[in-house]
Amino acid sequence: MALISDLGDQTPSRMAFDAPLPLQSGASLPAYELVVETYGRLNADKSNAVLVCHALNASHHVAGTYGGDEKTRGWWDNMVGPGKPVDTDRYFVVGINNPGSCFGSTGPASIDPATGQPWGSRFPVVTVEDWVDAQARVLDRLGIERLAAVMGGSLGGMQALCWAMRHAARVAHCVAIATAPNLSAQNIAFNEVARRAIITDPDFHGGDFYAHGVVPRQGLAMARMVGHITYLSDDAMASKFGRNLRNGELGYGFDVDFQIESYLRHQGEKFSGIFDANTYLLLTRALDYFDPAAAHGGDLTAALAPATARFLLASFTTDWRFAPERSREIVRALLANRREVSYAEIESPHGHDAFLMDEPHYHDMVRAYFDRIAHDLKLEGAR
Amino acid sequence: MALISDLGDQTPSRMAFDAPLPLQSGASLPAYELVVETYGRLNADKSNAVLVCHALNASHHVAGTYGGDEKTRGWWDNMVGPGKPVDTDRYFVVGINNPGSCFGSTGPASIDPATGQPWGSRFPVVTVEDWVDAQARVLDRLGIERLAAVMGGSLGGMQALCWAMRHAARVAHCVAIATAPNLSAQNIAFNEVARRAIITDPDFHGGDFYAHGVVPRQGLAMARMVGHITYLSDDAMASKFGRNLRNGELGYGFDVDFQIESYLRHQGEKFSGIFDANTYLLLTRALDYFDPAAAHGGDLTAALAPATARFLLASFTTDWRFAPERSREIVRALLANRREVSYAEIESPHGHDAFLMDEPHYHDMVRAYFDRIAHDLKLEGAR
Repeated sequence: MALISDLGDQTPSRMAFDAPLPLQSGASLPAYELVVETYGRLNADKSNAVLVCHALNASHHVAGTYGGDEKTRGWWDNMVGPGKPVDTDRYFVVGINNPGSCFGSTGPASIDPATGQPWGSRFPVVTVEDWVDAQARVLDRLGIERLAAVMGGSLGGMQALCWAMRHAARVAHCVAIATAPNLSAQNIAFNEVARRAIITDPDFHGGDFYAHGVVPRQGLAMARMVGHITYLSDDAMASKFGRNLRNGELGYGFDVDFQIESYLRHQGEKFSGIFDANTYLLLTRALDYFDPAAAHGGDLTAALAPATARFLLASFTTDWRFAPERSREIVRALLANRREVSYAEIESPHGHDAFLMDEPHYHDMVRAYFDRIAHDLKLEGAR
Repeated sequence: MALISDLGDQTPSRMAFDAPLPLQSGASLPAYELVVETYGRLNADKSNAVLVCHALNASHHVAGTYGGDEKTRGWWDNMVGPGKPVDTDRYFVVGINNPGSCFGSTGPASIDPATGQPWGSRFPVVTVEDWVDAQARVLDRLGIERLAAVMGGSLGGMQALCWAMRHAARVAHCVAIATAPNLSAQNIAFNEVARRAIITDPDFHGGDFYAHGVVPRQGLAMARMVGHITYLSDDAMASKFGRNLRNGELGYGFDVDFQIESYLRHQGEKFSGIFDANTYLLLTRALDYFDPAAAHGGDLTAALAPATARFLLASFTTDWRFAPERSREIVRALLANRREVSYAEIESPHGHDAFLMDEPHYHDMVRAYFDRIAHDLKLEGAR
């Protein structure tokens, strides 16, 4: 096994696309740009590419840093890198910032060429399918016909599943972690609360706040607070915060008394300073809308029938946002299609957030899976 | 068994208290009024009184109607009435609207005699202990020294537990349903989101919106939406709404697409038309603060040591707001004190809301328990 070393500083690149992107809604996104970051080297036969799809609060910046600043470390740096479970000494890893994002790709804050103003409320609703199609064009540009693997967690896992159905011939392996075949009513309900918080913030201005020089910070902060509660398990919150008081005594008012309040407010404020409110609406709607079984009368087995990839699925015992049962639904539908599936339900106290954490059993499993892919593909450096 | 008949129309009464109510915060509530409603007849030796404590969105109006209007039916009408589990042919049932409420008792919308203006932001933070003390004064006024039972669900169950500890000699039986010895960090987190929604609504005006002729409707609606998600189980939402669309197709926007969104918005709007925003803050804070074990270094057994009542506790299998495990904590602490405890974990798909529903097994159990109390007390009409 190679020594684990750091990927170091990264430089994202921009790709401009002139051909409009047709969208599920019937609309289309005219000329647009996507930010892309890659790690490792694409091999001669272009067989070692792994696409990593990002979830809600993430981007193309999967691993490494910018300018040596630790605070810029990529969102899945513990998973992707030299000697890491997805080993960049063997794999060429691609991170793509999805359209609609606020981290560099064309999104609601970008200038709409038709008006010379930020897209704002006029940015079209994009879906998981739309993102996957946009990603496919990036792979075309990179000359990658077939992925060794597509991989993602949460909303990223939905994209990985979508790839396996929508571009089946281009996917050898699909790694979908802490995900679901669709959102439950409760999941949608939390998203709706988050969206209402943003939309009813007077600084939202119907989505066109850019022109007003304001940001709907309160609404965005509240949306993030709701999200955070659902990412953590009840147990994780209990052990991290419990009923601990910030100042040791009750204040008999509505300011911060408990540490959990302080933590949530801090998370909300931090997020509202870096994230775009319209992007938050778009991402939660993409989550709501993903439902491949819907076109098959609710039959997930029928929806997954076109998939030819081999699958690795993983879920976490205390994840109540995308509970293990939701992964099992996918596993059952794949098995009904006689697909090859590995599935692990991983003990973790960390709720949905576990998929981003360095849980040894989880990482060992992903490592073993990618070792096998490398072995099957006879990749250089395969052990 | 008596035929079940309706209590019919009720007339609440107002009780004025001139002596200030000392509060846990160190402040006190000056002269105040409470609204009280009673059902059945107090017997000669005043031994048949049952106090029913209300939870968040409820009041003194436990059962019966006003003006024959079905829409005014009391919040626990399926539990309290002639021939019902708490049988008003035998028991004298008392409902008291707690101070801080918006249903008639002195609260933030009442006039503060010191200023001639609504209390608003200056209304003192009240606790479960404060409410119980206020209720005790009402019982004094009614000449009731000792309760046959004190009873409540959720926040009402916390009051019932508090009675058993704080006024132990006045409680023969304590019936605490779907409750907890304190809120978890996750519970507090949801309350904090709800409060932030209200406080950041520009129409809140720091709590003094009355003078501005507005109501923070958006914030209050959002608070209610968050609450509703936590009252229902994931399964109940799935079976009631699933991913059903309101108009049969996706709208590719941020308006209502799913029936769950429509339901939540409707519940939020309805609530914001009848509830007071300051009361919502007060009630959620009273929930946050209740923690009898805190004064005993977290030892619930020590906190419950003074209680001499016999106990009935019940929880519901799909209640994730006040999960069965929280009731079991109370049961264990009572057993460690060698108290007499009956406990039932009731199968129900309805989440926390189950405590208000007509679940036969649950109602049969409460009925049997109150039959035994009547038998022990040799109450008239006891069967």
